[in-house]
Amino acid sequence: MIVVIRPHAPAEKVEQVIREITELGYTPSPIRGEFQTVVAAIGDETTHASLESLTALPQVERVLRVQKRYKLASRESRPERTVIDVGGVKIGGDEFVLMAGPCSVESEEQLMSTAHAVKAAGATILRGGAYKPRTSPYEFQGLGPEGLKLLAAAREATGLRIITEVLGEHDVELVAATADILQIGARNAQNFQLLIACARSGKPVLLKRGMSMRVEEWLLAAEYILAHGNPNVILCERGIRTFENYTRNTLDLAAVAIAKQETHLPVIVDPSQGCGRADLVKVLCRGAVAVGADGLLVEVHPNPAEALSDGQQQLDPEAFAGLVGELRPFANAASRRL
Amino acid sequence: MIVVIRPHAPAEKVEQVIREITELGYTPSPIRGEFQTVVAAIGDETTHASLESLTALPQVERVLRVQKRYKLASRESRPERTVIDVGGVKIGGDEFVLMAGPCSVESEEQLMSTAHAVKAAGATILRGGAYKPRTSPYEFQGLGPEGLKLLAAAREATGLRIITEVLGEHDVELVAATADILQIGARNAQNFQLLIACARSGKPVLLKRGMSMRVEEWLLAAEYILAHGNPNVILCERGIRTFENYTRNTLDLAAVAIAKQETHLPVIVDPSQGCGRADLVKVLCRGAVAVGADGLLVEVHPNPAEALSDGQQQLDPEAFAGLVGELRPFANAASRRL
Amino acid sequence: MIVVIRPHAPAEKVEQVIREITELGYTPSPIRGEFQTVVAAIGDETTHASLESLTALPQVERVLRVQKRYKLASRESRPERTVIDVGGVKIGGDEFVLMAGPCSVESEEQLMSTAHAVKAAGATILRGGAYKPRTSPYEFQGLGPEGLKLLAAAREATGLRIITEVLGEHDVELVAATADILQIGARNAQNFQLLIACARSGKPVLLKRGMSMRVEEWLLAAEYILAHGNPNVILCERGIRTFENYTRNTLDLAAVAIAKQETHLPVIVDPSQGCGRADLVKVLCRGAVAVGADGLLVEVHPNPAEALSDGQQQLDPEAFAGLVGELRPFANAASRRL
Amino acid sequence: MIVVIRPHAPAEKVEQVIREITELGYTPSPIRGEFQTVVAAIGDETTHASLESLTALPQVERVLRVQKRYKLASRESRPERTVIDVGGVKIGGDEFVLMAGPCSVESEEQLMSTAHAVKAAGATILRGGAYKPRTSPYEFQGLGPEGLKLLAAAREATGLRIITEVLGEHDVELVAATADILQIGARNAQNFQLLIACARSGKPVLLKRGMSMRVEEWLLAAEYILAHGNPNVILCERGIRTFENYTRNTLDLAAVAIAKQETHLPVIVDPSQGCGRADLVKVLCRGAVAVGADGLLVEVHPNPAEALSDGQQQLDPEAFAGLVGELRPFANAASRRL
Repeated sequence: MIVVIRPHAPAEKVEQVIREITELGYTPSPIRGEFQTVVAAIGDETTHASLESLTALPQVERVLRVQKRYKLASRESRPERTVIDVGGVKIGGDEFVLMAGPCSVESEEQLMSTAHAVKAAGATILRGGAYKPRTSPYEFQGLGPEGLKLLAAAREATGLRIITEVLGEHDVELVAATADILQIGARNAQNFQLLIACARSGKPVLLKRGMSMRVEEWLLAAEYILAHGNPNVILCERGIRTFENYTRNTLDLAAVAIAKQETHLPVIVDPSQGCGRADLVKVLCRGAVAVGADGLLVEVHPNPAEALSDGQQQLDPEAFAGLVGELRPFANAASRRL
Repeated sequence: MIVVIRPHAPAEKVEQVIREITELGYTPSPIRGEFQTVVAAIGDETTHASLESLTALPQVERVLRVQKRYKLASRESRPERTVIDVGGVKIGGDEFVLMAGPCSVESEEQLMSTAHAVKAAGATILRGGAYKPRTSPYEFQGLGPEGLKLLAAAREATGLRIITEVLGEHDVELVAATADILQIGARNAQNFQLLIACARSGKPVLLKRGMSMRVEEWLLAAEYILAHGNPNVILCERGIRTFENYTRNTLDLAAVAIAKQETHLPVIVDPSQGCGRADLVKVLCRGAVAVGADGLLVEVHPNPAEALSDGQQQLDPEAFAGLVGELRPFANAASRRL
Repeated sequence: MIVVIRPHAPAEKVEQVIREITELGYTPSPIRGEFQTVVAAIGDETTHASLESLTALPQVERVLRVQKRYKLASRESRPERTVIDVGGVKIGGDEFVLMAGPCSVESEEQLMSTAHAVKAAGATILRGGAYKPRTSPYEFQGLGPEGLKLLAAAREATGLRIITEVLGEHDVELVAATADILQIGARNAQNFQLLIACARSGKPVLLKRGMSMRVEEWLLAAEYILAHGNPNVILCERGIRTFENYTRNTLDLAAVAIAKQETHLPVIVDPSQGCGRADLVKVLCRGAVAVGADGLLVEVHPNPAEALSDGQQQLDPEAFAGLVGELRPFANAASRRL
Repeated sequence: MIVVIRPHAPAEKVEQVIREITELGYTPSPIRGEFQTVVAAIGDETTHASLESLTALPQVERVLRVQKRYKLASRESRPERTVIDVGGVKIGGDEFVLMAGPCSVESEEQLMSTAHAVKAAGATILRGGAYKPRTSPYEFQGLGPEGLKLLAAAREATGLRIITEVLGEHDVELVAATADILQIGARNAQNFQLLIACARSGKPVLLKRGMSMRVEEWLLAAEYILAHGNPNVILCERGIRTFENYTRNTLDLAAVAIAKQETHLPVIVDPSQGCGRADLVKVLCRGAVAVGADGLLVEVHPNPAEALSDGQQQLDPEAFAGLVGELRPFANAASRRL
């Protein structure tokens, strides 16, 4: 780390900083500039305590980290890309993966018809929420265990793999008994206890980026899962919260490229949450393919206008099939099979 | 709700919207303007499904809510302010409440010396983290159950009430056995399963505002706790995430005033998280008193430079005592006892 | 507009609102819901005063606009897309347009070598700043009139069209004498006097989105130019300011799609400002093509490491040529010629 | 500056960086850590070129500045506070200064009645916009020169000093002939040509913080004015743009404290723009006093509901008088005269 001392700090105050750095296990290396002294603290930042606490001393202006804070997630630790095999569906390889299905599982008919339709259009993984995190306690909270049963039946009927969200530690075991991939939603992206519980389930985990998470924090959340013994993490960009209000969130496609560059993990994009408007989903899917995403998570509902949750951002099956057709040339351009 | 139809939509498309509104249980009342038609949908928005799904129809431009989404938290449902009694300490009344203590419980000596010091300075509630949510899995995660024991001992020794954070559903029972107030942190502010579990514990719950939560969403998170039968919710503003990087977060003191106006619940301020810099804590405390907060949650550590977490934003006991002295005239100006 | 009355407002307070609405020239149409009354105010919102001032009345909870605030910029006013002819280069048509060149004009050699290189790679418009808006007064502010002369010479030598930024009203005439397109930077995007002065110059104007501008505000800034008699406006998305700090800005590719949908104007993307990192420029260019942008504005410098401004985000000529080659299949997929 | 080299960079690549640093006029001082090398570049960062361009080299991971970028604005350059004398009204001294008046000058009667009322309540400076920057070209743009005449007449009649906004370079001379303080609005806060023109007028300049300006950028904008020979700069916090939409902006009261700490300049607060809601103005004024602001800029209108601009955030004269009364004890607590 680099400890920046305030201008005009007396020598004994610099000495105090140097002593503290030593005490915290780093080797101090002071550099006296024209106006200010900085002290480089040599040592492994990921195993030593942070020196940021030193800014509690009035003579310390700032502390700057040098090393990256994530290890297992980094390209340095694993130069080749991670390909996750979900019952034969490979995520993070040459194939571009389509995960599609309704925001919420609402009924057998709704789920089955959607499952057959998205499979026909090219999806290999079925999404559908049995447990729904809703902003208000008065909104539809999902069918719960009954929804999981319907998802299992849809897998049986179609051969699609299943991804579904898990909301709390208590549900991990039950959800993991059905799901092929556990989804951790944006609101829980720094619910570390849930990350750890999902890691321990052994199932692949799809980790959405939190609404106000910097990329570094997102990768550190992934690091929690990796560090608890589960190497199968899929990152999912779904938009961040900004001042713009035409869209529900601001889809950060640069973050996809950054995550691909910084880590070896697969990265997919959720354009439905990303914009919150069905009329923009298609064009954002193209953008996602172009920036190098490994797949998409798209909300599809047989009748969006009457959906029990987030109808405004769901495509109907016909629109989804059209979307896939339009994506093919972009996938080709990006050297991905679709 | 108000459904805004796109300009030039043909009459039968407007009729379709009217039919859908009726089907969803509202009474439609169309108003034809010079350029656009809007349809007012009359009915209780908190019990009916949202009409936002109707924007899936191409002729629908936008859907605007009219009613507030929170009920139990609102001033309309309870005009008089809620005063929460925590073992004789009243939060939300005429007294201005000081909660203070270390970011993390680190050792018996650290906690005891801090507890005695903050009590002497005027605090009535001791804060201290036994379970710490840390951005990186490699950072100090708290002492866990051992930390809870130390907190119980400090209460025994000083008579201070205890507030401490609970990170996951599995810990609620254990933490609630020691804590007088359960704290839900910013990262878990929309971890609805945790909100429900804390609600059911029967203990007062302090709910921090999430980093990217609008005030409405914060009050809806409080509504989860109220709707699950626990009326003792304390709101805590701790700064939101913005582009500004001089401070760790941007303390939103207007949100304190809004929450006091919109709800009957007590609202306190955490200036330590709010700015992440000890040198600004004092002045933000003044601001908090002035805008009408009911109390403060301040981080105090015997030796901030060597703290195991967030030393940069912790005051030492002497600075805390000085702070309390300086706050008194502001508390008087705000007609609060301190 | 829709005026939302607070719950439980007495009838005479509702009457007062209705009177004010009438006085401001609208026809009021009250709708009494179960809990709240709303009053629809019928009339042209773009020619009447806004009713937002009515929220000064305590019985008014909120005022919601219905109509869009931009007229000339909207698709409704002109369904076919605007194609701008800049000395034979058509912007907004089937061709995908490349504008490239250095951040700042630094010297004849630097500019000439870049101009020849970007032309060879496929660019038709040369960018280069003669006047530079710099955050600090101590940074390089551009060569000024001397820079304009070099740009004119580069046009002479290569046949490329010239785009360059204009910083203030006083410079419009001088810059317009040389430039084929006037660029208005993000910091001046709501400098309305400059917008009007540029409009009056008669030259095409490229309007960057301001760092914290909502799409609606961006389109209203374009409306200033259109309303002052200049139909040749090119919109340019260059990233918005968010909390993310890995990149300099967050490129909002959804905004490109929205602007294409809402307006008839050409929309281009500046990925260099958008991310502030050369290593991400290439992939964001792909994304821009895929979401439907009409062109790119890319910073190219013969030796980025020694650039006088923003070297970190400039490509060298070789990288630019490589970029263009990689973009072609994406342009094909998007049915654009490149 | 500190140049961080990527892990595993070969020695000759580090040498290349060291050579570039030397070429750019700094003295390089490499420090080899366990995992990464950093090179400290010793030299005055405010007079040398930035090394950020070096991140164009693939072996450079990041460049970190050490020195502050503002000089004349900093406390280091001038430890004592700047007190600005505006015709006998001292801004930045022990007195707490009230600037009040309508958002827009609308008529003689409107302005005169407001001027007399705010003077009676304790204001010493009259605000009022003759030139209004409006988001839409179809909104009221101010009375222009006629508005300036009315402001001059109001000064004549009341003895109040005048502050009014200047929108463009062309208007500076005319506005400066009437105004005692030139106001630069948030949208123009990085319109550097306007900053320079206002600096040269010799009049005190009130510089609002831009909507998405970091504090550092705000102080650098002030530095533009100082560096062009005008020492009389008043900073004005007016809220930043965030995701919160209950208020129009998020008033950042911590920024007031930071600006007071980092600079010697007076800092005032505009709570009307800061929240955009009259019902919150009062409580935010209290907060502003408490955090150490030197004064307030408050919008007051005789009949807010019919104001031609921003009525929703204007107080009527009675409310303003009440506000001043309530502020007195807070001003006392903050050791300010009011």
